[in-house]
Amino acid sequence: MDYGKLAEARLSEIAGMSATGPGVTRLPWTAEHRRAIGHITSWMQDAGLDVSLDAAGTLIGRTPGMAGRPALLLGSHQDSVRSGGRFDGIMGVAVACLAVRRLADEGVQLPFAVEVLAFADEEGVRFPTALIGPRALAGSFDPTVLEMRDAEGVSMGQAMEGFGLDPGQIPALARRQQDVVGYLEAHIEQGPVLEAADRSLGVVTAICGISRHSVTFEGETGHAGTVPMEGRRDALVAAARFIAAVSDAAAGLEECRATVGKIEAKPGVVNAIPSRVDLTLELRAPTDDMRLAFHAKAQRLGDEIAAESGVSVTLSQTYEQPAVACAPGIKAALTKGMTASQLPLTSLPSGATHDASAMADLCPVGMLFVRCKGGISHRPDEHASAVDMGDAIRVLAETIKVLASKEHG
Amino acid sequence: MDYGKLAEARLSEIAGMSATGPGVTRLPWTAEHRRAIGHITSWMQDAGLDVSLDAAGTLIGRTPGMAGRPALLLGSHQDSVRSGGRFDGIMGVAVACLAVRRLADEGVQLPFAVEVLAFADEEGVRFPTALIGPRALAGSFDPTVLEMRDAEGVSMGQAMEGFGLDPGQIPALARRQQDVVGYLEAHIEQGPVLEAADRSLGVVTAICGISRHSVTFEGETGHAGTVPMEGRRDALVAAARFIAAVSDAAAGLEECRATVGKIEAKPGVVNAIPSRVDLTLELRAPTDDMRLAFHAKAQRLGDEIAAESGVSVTLSQTYEQPAVACAPGIKAALTKGMTASQLPLTSLPSGATHDASAMADLCPVGMLFVRCKGGISHRPDEHASAVDMGDAIRVLAETIKVLASKEHG
Repeated sequence: MDYGKLAEARLSEIAGMSATGPGVTRLPWTAEHRRAIGHITSWMQDAGLDVSLDAAGTLIGRTPGMAGRPALLLGSHQDSVRSGGRFDGIMGVAVACLAVRRLADEGVQLPFAVEVLAFADEEGVRFPTALIGPRALAGSFDPTVLEMRDAEGVSMGQAMEGFGLDPGQIPALARRQQDVVGYLEAHIEQGPVLEAADRSLGVVTAICGISRHSVTFEGETGHAGTVPMEGRRDALVAAARFIAAVSDAAAGLEECRATVGKIEAKPGVVNAIPSRVDLTLELRAPTDDMRLAFHAKAQRLGDEIAAESGVSVTLSQTYEQPAVACAPGIKAALTKGMTASQLPLTSLPSGATHDASAMADLCPVGMLFVRCKGGISHRPDEHASAVDMGDAIRVLAETIKVLASKEHG
Repeated sequence: MDYGKLAEARLSEIAGMSATGPGVTRLPWTAEHRRAIGHITSWMQDAGLDVSLDAAGTLIGRTPGMAGRPALLLGSHQDSVRSGGRFDGIMGVAVACLAVRRLADEGVQLPFAVEVLAFADEEGVRFPTALIGPRALAGSFDPTVLEMRDAEGVSMGQAMEGFGLDPGQIPALARRQQDVVGYLEAHIEQGPVLEAADRSLGVVTAICGISRHSVTFEGETGHAGTVPMEGRRDALVAAARFIAAVSDAAAGLEECRATVGKIEAKPGVVNAIPSRVDLTLELRAPTDDMRLAFHAKAQRLGDEIAAESGVSVTLSQTYEQPAVACAPGIKAALTKGMTASQLPLTSLPSGATHDASAMADLCPVGMLFVRCKGGISHRPDEHASAVDMGDAIRVLAETIKVLASKEHG
């Protein structure tokens, strides 16, 4: 049985369940989502699971006949970005189903229930929020988000009701910690690390924390012809030195990432010295300590450069999301699963947020990254190979066995 | 007689001939221009000059009874930017009239005619062109600009006709070189150099040439979380290094100026590595050789930084205006005029364009800069002191005497 090929065929089929346009566009609580649920139901049933849909739109396949027993949760999200690819999210659902199927094929009996979860929304494309499904399970769902509206003016609550759900029941979805063994998610890496290291899979060490900062340099405008270089208080030259310095500082720190994505200079005309520059700075690091130290470093660099340039600088934080450490027990089980599958071990942090980020509020979480071509994601040409997905299915199955043996022991 | 105080009083009075709003707004061929002409006529008559208006709207006051004799031209422009100050341009007309008055008061006889010119438009605010008056005299007037329209849809030709002018006669205004001794213009510095040097006046060495360049860095976008720093091809980090390097290079070259006034990063979102940055680079230098060498240097810096950053760069020139060297004879006369006035000598290039830029196509030009407070111009708080204007009037008068003695000799 080539489980990797089967995953590839299934992902090819479900990729057709998309709004029109290039690549895959499958937003939560839409007709495409509805069609996808039908298809995923068949994957779950093929793995011997009982299928249900919860009030948040999460499709759940659970080992039958294990009522009241704790469950190991597996899965990822069914939704895509607009004009995205056929692997991000949905691959995690597909390989989870096939790992369970593989265990059944092997006749493995587990001491806990297994649930495969296909969450409705992780990308946050339709509504300006995301992770409703895992937050519901973790008990961290905020009912006020039901009032958020999509581009057509439909509220999230209305979208759910139109999908046949009762959003009023979402708070009741919260799981008790004693009912959950852990959460294990496979996902494409969305980056170039595994490809560069020539590895099909990597064990995720942590999901990076994020902070976003609005940075403003203020100097003085003046005529680009009449003000000599030495007397200038050019906000853009100062901002440029800051951007380069922050990038250099991040490059010197393993696993920290600093990105200036947006910049605006005012007055913004060809023959005037910029008096003000606004830019965004995003920091990501696998631990909050690293991120906070890097934030302090960025503030110091800004202050130094501003002082040397005769301008002022302010950094103000606009968003913060703490880092999530993957649970040592699940990382250790994944490592054993890799070894049992005769795969060399590679570990790496996740720079992106995942369903696991929200699940960490409920239980120990672990993630397995699958190599993707060129590090590309969120595009129609996003790609993971059948061979690599086959590796992922095997490692998930072996990891579940390791967790089962721990549960016994 | 305190000529500086008189200049201050006259500039205060003519500042009222403005459109409503803060500061001075006096655009060419408007009711405000009409009122200003009436006032400037009285300045010219007070200096003993015959007054006429040419077909471009330049008010001309000329020594009477010198028909057929070559003329030394003095002057500047009557117009302002919107919400500008009371000195830029019009001060040059005021001090020229008072220098001629001063010579008359001293009973000085000149071997050439003197003309004071009050050009209609130098700022290029009403129409997207400027310097019509001096270009008409220099024979470099382009009649197609008469079709250009202002914000109200009025063409320049219509505006002139509404002012009582016959734009068809503009080409006939071109002067013969043998009829002109030279052109001498006083203007506020519009920069901080004289104030920093504690000098009331400076002799202009050259009017800087200008080139403008559209600079594009192209790299590769990617997720701000999943792409490690070392694998990035970040167009904004490369652009930032370029901005800093070009600024440093310009600071190391006397009298060169480099300004990045405008910048845009794409895709321009907080959590994506910029794939493309477009920016403007403006270079100014007192000689074309210096400017072209600096342009080559900027290209080299861009190429080196792009290569190190794994991105591409293109610089393409969008505008070029050659440098205008001030005539050695007029500079020498101004220098003697400064000495005769017991003022210490300071010389500096003009980073901004002036009427003299266009007059250089006709005759030798020279400029005298007057200190302005804080280097500020084009704002209501633009200021030059009565004492400094008095110095300028004296130096202009002494310079005219020097030129007269050369003409005799």
